[in-house]
Amino acid sequence: MSGRLAVVGIGPGAVEQLTAAAAAELAAAELLVGYGGYLDQLPTDVAPGRREAYPIGDEHERARRAVSAAADGARVALVSSGDPGIYGMASLAIDQAAALGESAPELVMVPGVTAAIAAGALLGAPLAVDFACLSLSDLLLPREELLAKLEALAATDIVLVLYNPASRTRREPWEAAVDALQRHRPSATPAAAVRRAYRDGQAVELADVGGLGQLEIDMETVVVVGCSRTRRHGPWLYTLRDEGRT
Amino acid sequence: MSGRLAVVGIGPGAVEQLTAAAAAELAAAELLVGYGGYLDQLPTDVAPGRREAYPIGDEHERARRAVSAAADGARVALVSSGDPGIYGMASLAIDQAAALGESAPELVMVPGVTAAIAAGALLGAPLAVDFACLSLSDLLLPREELLAKLEALAATDIVLVLYNPASRTRREPWEAAVDALQRHRPSATPAAAVRRAYRDGQAVELADVGGLGQLEIDMETVVVVGCSRTRRHGPWLYTLRDEGRT
Repeated sequence: MSGRLAVVGIGPGAVEQLTAAAAAELAAAELLVGYGGYLDQLPTDVAPGRREAYPIGDEHERARRAVSAAADGARVALVSSGDPGIYGMASLAIDQAAALGESAPELVMVPGVTAAIAAGALLGAPLAVDFACLSLSDLLLPREELLAKLEALAATDIVLVLYNPASRTRREPWEAAVDALQRHRPSATPAAAVRRAYRDGQAVELADVGGLGQLEIDMETVVVVGCSRTRRHGPWLYTLRDEGRT
Repeated sequence: MSGRLAVVGIGPGAVEQLTAAAAAELAAAELLVGYGGYLDQLPTDVAPGRREAYPIGDEHERARRAVSAAADGARVALVSSGDPGIYGMASLAIDQAAALGESAPELVMVPGVTAAIAAGALLGAPLAVDFACLSLSDLLLPREELLAKLEALAATDIVLVLYNPASRTRREPWEAAVDALQRHRPSATPAAAVRRAYRDGQAVELADVGGLGQLEIDMETVVVVGCSRTRRHGPWLYTLRDEGRT
């Protein structure tokens, strides 16, 4: 009598960026659980099931509800933006299912296009040679741990993608990031902010490390910072393993 | 008279992991250019255009051909596995287009599910809290540069995804990676190898840092190495920002 829980990555937002597997799970789900803002991105012909919309910041409760509805026999999609395994709902769902032991429902993760990949595609190919993703949210992580990772990654010559760079009330980690990057990387290193990739209001702002502090950023932005191999050509940012065309 | 070049990420391989946007580009392309092994993953009803298959290792020539056919007026899809911007064809295509200046064709990158995300979904959610992707191929990159990045990332407490861990003739960077990870991370830290995710022959092997050296790896494998926050439950590997369920 146990149901099935699919933790579904819906990509950056536009229905065109859904995988076929994600679309199939959304179409088949009797119950859709997720942050209201993400559910609103899904037309009812794409996701016809009953919806339970949650406010932001209630992730544990959302995961518990999705796991328990599936354990009770429902076919459930827990909706996550981007990829559910990258700053998404997948780890909380596994953690809740683990608590149920034998009565846990069938659980499947459905991958999606994460914000770093969406931003990379709009910019060209900045992530082509090794990169790291780091969230600047210190909501659930000790600030010192975040700053230690930031310092180490800024000092390593790889492309960085910063998720959740700043909110209305939280600017300090971003200021620390700008400071660390300006200490470790040449000012002319290409960088960019991508806001609302593949959604209404999409905006790309190109910059360099010297001008990072002037970028307009918020929770719907990711910031991409190049490495020594990243170059710019017109609107494109791209990173090459070698010297390029021969 | 200029055509259009779409650099299309086909995801890990299965047609179910294509985004709708990627499927639309493949359906509309008159000419498909790509490594033969990737083109073979696309049924002709998905990608009905004429095909030019290239052997592995000819990436510059592939990019040049795709850009030049589009500049001559064709609608071209340059096919890349995973995401074209992550160890894929996008940066070479931009570099070739840059050489054409005013006569460059329209160019669009179509994002896809990269191998790290595919592997993460099969394992659960190991990439949930900050991670880095590093290729261990030293084919086009100085060995010292690779080893410096490896050492710095192994010493930073984030999840690592190692692409191209070893080939038949290249084992040294992998041996250096095992050594660096065993020096910097506790033996019990969860790790895994994922081979051919979402393709025939898919295989997942769970391990820990102490047992990394025993993993079976090749060019179709990615290796995921956890951080201090990564835990294991049954078949699942997952990383949590906080202490988990409350």
